[in-house]
Amino acid sequence: MSLIVQKFGGSSVSDADGIKRVAQRIMDTRAQGHSVVVVVSAMGDTTDDLLDLAGQLTSDAPAREMDMLLSSGERISMALLAMAIDAIGGKAVSFTGSQAGMVTDAVHGKARIIEVSPERVRKALDRDHVAIVAGFQGMSKEGRNVTTMGRGGSDTTAVALAAALNADVCEIYTDVDGVYTADPRIVPSAKKIDEISSEEMLEMAASGAKILHLRCVEYARRFGVPLHVRSSFSTNEGTWVLPSPDDKIKIQEGEPLEQPIISGVAHDRSEAKVTIVGVPDIPGKAADIFGVIAGANSNIDMIVQNVSTAGSGKTDISFTLPIVEGKDALAALRENQERIGFEGVEYNEQIGKLSLIGAGMRSNPGVSYRFFEALSAAGVNVDMISTSEIRISIVTDADKLDAAVKAVHTAFDLDSDAAATVYGGTGR
Amino acid sequence: MSLIVQKFGGSSVSDADGIKRVAQRIMDTRAQGHSVVVVVSAMGDTTDDLLDLAGQLTSDAPAREMDMLLSSGERISMALLAMAIDAIGGKAVSFTGSQAGMVTDAVHGKARIIEVSPERVRKALDRDHVAIVAGFQGMSKEGRNVTTMGRGGSDTTAVALAAALNADVCEIYTDVDGVYTADPRIVPSAKKIDEISSEEMLEMAASGAKILHLRCVEYARRFGVPLHVRSSFSTNEGTWVLPSPDDKIKIQEGEPLEQPIISGVAHDRSEAKVTIVGVPDIPGKAADIFGVIAGANSNIDMIVQNVSTAGSGKTDISFTLPIVEGKDALAALRENQERIGFEGVEYNEQIGKLSLIGAGMRSNPGVSYRFFEALSAAGVNVDMISTSEIRISIVTDADKLDAAVKAVHTAFDLDSDAAATVYGGTGR
Repeated sequence: MSLIVQKFGGSSVSDADGIKRVAQRIMDTRAQGHSVVVVVSAMGDTTDDLLDLAGQLTSDAPAREMDMLLSSGERISMALLAMAIDAIGGKAVSFTGSQAGMVTDAVHGKARIIEVSPERVRKALDRDHVAIVAGFQGMSKEGRNVTTMGRGGSDTTAVALAAALNADVCEIYTDVDGVYTADPRIVPSAKKIDEISSEEMLEMAASGAKILHLRCVEYARRFGVPLHVRSSFSTNEGTWVLPSPDDKIKIQEGEPLEQPIISGVAHDRSEAKVTIVGVPDIPGKAADIFGVIAGANSNIDMIVQNVSTAGSGKTDISFTLPIVEGKDALAALRENQERIGFEGVEYNEQIGKLSLIGAGMRSNPGVSYRFFEALSAAGVNVDMISTSEIRISIVTDADKLDAAVKAVHTAFDLDSDAAATVYGGTGR
Repeated sequence: MSLIVQKFGGSSVSDADGIKRVAQRIMDTRAQGHSVVVVVSAMGDTTDDLLDLAGQLTSDAPAREMDMLLSSGERISMALLAMAIDAIGGKAVSFTGSQAGMVTDAVHGKARIIEVSPERVRKALDRDHVAIVAGFQGMSKEGRNVTTMGRGGSDTTAVALAAALNADVCEIYTDVDGVYTADPRIVPSAKKIDEISSEEMLEMAASGAKILHLRCVEYARRFGVPLHVRSSFSTNEGTWVLPSPDDKIKIQEGEPLEQPIISGVAHDRSEAKVTIVGVPDIPGKAADIFGVIAGANSNIDMIVQNVSTAGSGKTDISFTLPIVEGKDALAALRENQERIGFEGVEYNEQIGKLSLIGAGMRSNPGVSYRFFEALSAAGVNVDMISTSEIRISIVTDADKLDAAVKAVHTAFDLDSDAAATVYGGTGR
């Protein structure tokens, strides 16, 4: 018997039929002898409807009240789910974030968990009940106000509960089968990944794979929580995201497999590129610029500083940031242009980022060669490059991105039946 | 400067425009220098929509989860109202029932308030904020679960807060101008009552006047809270419901007025009449019967026991109860028919109750005479009679009820301009 945390998103509980299906799924897990904690998001369009109502009143709602408003969505779905479980003979009890002991900081709209004290959840499990917990919300330690955690909040709630309860697995239910080697809408031959390390999944999420939020994977990795991303519409195994290679051995109960070189190809269209032209090439100017951006609360991703043109004493600095943060960042830069002394700013939203991720590339020196060769053969220009130990990312023109993804996916044999046999000898 | 508690029902906040209007109303009160605590119900159809969703899942939802579900409605309206106040330059903060210190017993769906500890509300007032509190909900002392208070719950929240905060007045906003001498849909010449004692209002509410819930008036009377029932669509004075005659003096700041004999005529179509035929006329049988009814959780209103027919040793007992409780009561009676030994049960939903209410009738012996004379002249049969010190009620056929209300209203000069001059010399 295991303790399983199951997280169901808004699309899984968008109407009464969806809620009934989820209730049945939970009871099927119970019937296998497991204890179950469920984390649930707001029903389908609830959050959008509430935002729309707020928008009719003000364009600048107080953050505390916005959290009070939005957190009502999960209360509705969790209570309905408890009723649906009761209706098919199960026993369930629902808890708000506050009742479940999700203590956060006081940053409304993007609160971070600082403590999880799920005493009431534990008691419910002891009484043989399914515990249903509202995702996405908590209570601030100071002030005891309702907080919400922003994007990916319900996944994070699930992982945090799994960690606090020492659950055997945290199942994230979605409308797809799992994590794929590339976005199947771009690469129809992309394959479901059976297992991936949380380190690799972290790079995938950071590189634009949308199935799991970065924050959730970070949390799972830090606390050693195995994730199982799977479909709420089938009982097929999905993708296991495993904190350490040892877990793979434990879970497969068979021969430890060697690591494939490459896990997958991720892409991201949500970033823009900013180029600061004619920056005086003297120490401190880059720090100045990035200080201004940080002050505008923008998150910089890739950075390239061009080599100073001989004798000019000037250089260009390019970086990428989320498109939604572009406006504020540009305004902040222009405000400081005179003081810093650069010549101008260029801004381009028509870019795409491609990332190749795989722990196996650590010990496979040929990966970069094969990667750039594939891009070149496909006629893809490379505008920026950044790498980590287990990732290579490039920026190209937005209209070249699909071709780039396909070319790289094919170059690493991810879309052939042979994919399963391509392992690197990592010796781990 | 006063402390005013204002309660707005669901129809006042049914959409963004309604919420804006209420926000403006609150800020107008603030502009007059008053501190304001607002109690708000769920928006328009929210509760019905949530009940409908629950109904699609189960016909027998666990009461705890139903409370969790329904209590979300007020969270939405209160957060939106706080945003609307902020949008017009005010400062407001919203509180759930739990945050506002509404501690109740654990009877989900009809919880009773056992303690009000509005520390956070007080602090918000100290910081010069409008405090917005979710009506209808609290938190159980044992178990710390969300509870709801059933019908009239938001009014009760408002009065309880007004009592705990020692507010100067509790304003109940509705879609009508105040309490009328009779239902204006039946008696178009009915007049708005400017002032009524809470004792009389209690009898009005118990007799079917729907504008204020019995429980709210009881609470206001017990804790000496002046109520002001008024329209959310105008700034006209409504009806003051005053806990003691002294308050009238205080509020009018003029000559204490003598009490009019009659406050108004209330009617009720929601009851049914049950007649138990052929009850053995021996001690203990009536207790037996009412014990059975109480066991079925029915609330008996009027009771008439006929005089035993000479020599038969049998009698009939009639009583009224809410139609919604009729089925269960009949089933319980039939189950016990053999044991108790009565001959049969008759059941009639085609009845109407009319009540004449007025503190002045205490010292006016002519009231009963004028009352029954008016009914007789209008051809209204009288089936049952019950009285209190300040009320006479009768039951008649449902199709005679309107005529009866009109006749009595006219007989006591309530629909003429002379009404204002009809005072009894009560000497109070």
